[in-house]
Amino acid sequence: MINLSWPFDLEEERIKDEITRRGALRVLVQLPEGLRSRALKIASLVEETNALAIVSADPCYGACDLALDEAKALSADLLIHFGHSETEHFKQRSNIPIIYVEAKALVDVRRVVEESLKHLKGWERIGLATTVQHVNSIDGAKEILENAGKKVYIGNEPGLKYPGQVLGCDYRNCRSISSMVDAFLFIGSGLFHATGVFLATLKPTIIADPFSEKIERVDDIAKLIINRRWTEICEASSAEKWGVIIGLKTGQQNFETAIKLKRDLEDCGKKAVLLSMREITPEILRDFVDIEAYANTTCPRISFYETKIFPKPILTPREVYVALGKIRWEEYLWSGLL
Amino acid sequence: MINLSWPFDLEEERIKDEITRRGALRVLVQLPEGLRSRALKIASLVEETNALAIVSADPCYGACDLALDEAKALSADLLIHFGHSETEHFKQRSNIPIIYVEAKALVDVRRVVEESLKHLKGWERIGLATTVQHVNSIDGAKEILENAGKKVYIGNEPGLKYPGQVLGCDYRNCRSISSMVDAFLFIGSGLFHATGVFLATLKPTIIADPFSEKIERVDDIAKLIINRRWTEICEASSAEKWGVIIGLKTGQQNFETAIKLKRDLEDCGKKAVLLSMREITPEILRDFVDIEAYANTTCPRISFYETKIFPKPILTPREVYVALGKIRWEEYLWSGLL
Repeated sequence: MINLSWPFDLEEERIKDEITRRGALRVLVQLPEGLRSRALKIASLVEETNALAIVSADPCYGACDLALDEAKALSADLLIHFGHSETEHFKQRSNIPIIYVEAKALVDVRRVVEESLKHLKGWERIGLATTVQHVNSIDGAKEILENAGKKVYIGNEPGLKYPGQVLGCDYRNCRSISSMVDAFLFIGSGLFHATGVFLATLKPTIIADPFSEKIERVDDIAKLIINRRWTEICEASSAEKWGVIIGLKTGQQNFETAIKLKRDLEDCGKKAVLLSMREITPEILRDFVDIEAYANTTCPRISFYETKIFPKPILTPREVYVALGKIRWEEYLWSGLL
Repeated sequence: MINLSWPFDLEEERIKDEITRRGALRVLVQLPEGLRSRALKIASLVEETNALAIVSADPCYGACDLALDEAKALSADLLIHFGHSETEHFKQRSNIPIIYVEAKALVDVRRVVEESLKHLKGWERIGLATTVQHVNSIDGAKEILENAGKKVYIGNEPGLKYPGQVLGCDYRNCRSISSMVDAFLFIGSGLFHATGVFLATLKPTIIADPFSEKIERVDDIAKLIINRRWTEICEASSAEKWGVIIGLKTGQQNFETAIKLKRDLEDCGKKAVLLSMREITPEILRDFVDIEAYANTTCPRISFYETKIFPKPILTPREVYVALGKIRWEEYLWSGLL
């Protein structure tokens, strides 16, 4: 058997069993960025059955981006989607079966959670949050915090698969408990989701990374993002020519929102053109030289984390209304940016 | 009426008539890069009828890339595709009507063709080639050359809409007359198509640009491309791990070729993984760190014109067989690279 030797559970046996059980002959495999270095090995694993493997190489940042069109175009009879969980939020009507391999982390979080207690001093009521990779560890983390005398809250909103789970665009499991907690502890890697917790709640947020065992408070970084949002909104407020971006990824199509934004911009005397796209890149937007600002109805990641690489402001729908003077900045800020 | 003030015929009246005649209510507009600066104006033109305009912002390099999936996802009832002609080559089964606006150049080519006679000295038999933008001028160009005593050949292969027309991936109108001519005169802008004429025929090729009125022989630039192809083939010949790229654009899906390449690579003891993608970018390929060379069954533009920006060799299907020792380099070269 192929050993993928990776600190995430890639469920090799389940993958082969599911392919065999379903008699799948052409399997489309969707990998997040971090797993692409394993593409050849994962394809070989699939081909240990009788199936042909095709690895989807288009960018994929979430379960909002299921390769359903690709699967159809390639006549695949099974889609294996790695790294994200099935969530109601992005549940798609699909003609082909989808297997989610959530890539749970094979790492003990206890030490970093114990270590995080030093950073949680002075706060009694702690909210816990994590990505799908560490959801199995959240009860253990809760126990450690409770043994240290903390009161622990874990959100459990419908539509999200696991208690405490956050997605890059869905922090309801934090927002729902935000008023009850003094601070959040986010278990996971990278700043992306942890700063999202702060942006959604404005509560002190500590990130505890079980791999690097680093513990870091993310508030200052998140506040820089907030400052940049304010700058972009100010810039956009004088824009006359707007592009309203409609996403083409399966879970990113918010057509009605886009139409409403276009109409509302036009009612304010602006010009607005609807632009449909799969990937929002600086190269693509650069060609639309006369457009001065963008309203983005797709993934909020672009607006919050990537705007530095774009030459023009890219606002979320609510931010467009701040730029138009329909929502006050303070109102937007205190309701949570995400 | 909106004046697009552009040196190409954008057929404003026909566009509005067709939308009105068909009663289209949601129109998807596809623009090549050079027309995107006019996106807002073109959308306004569409919306002078009762229709809603959506501009497709995903990259589009040819009629091989009709936005049919996008049109379906957006429930558009009409697709207007600018800048390319309908060709048998990429004729798609489509459920929605497509209007091609070929964007014919509004420029007189006579002066630059007359000027080109100096550069054609010593050659008696001239092949003419151009893109769809200048096909209406090809007869006038022929006349000027004939009046100067040249014998003029214009290819007229089935599947291409106009005599003398070339596409970035289809030079049959040059190949078919190549043995009869001493040199080619290409009427148009940019090096892309003109170097393609040389790569397909290895005949001296002069580019005559009616806009800049510059005349240039492209052989040396094309030879640099050939040198680079040789370098890449040599690099790839020792690669053990291959990615075989399947295109997802409507006219770029060559699934059977990809499967055959994978099998043939494996028969030669190589590892090969099928990778499906819409856009081939350095960022995307960078994630597949263990892959040493790529076989590209999509647009040949990537292999011939863009490889400098890619970290690994990207070979056309025939080049893969050169790398594997199944076709001799000389045989590949003399049969025409495109």
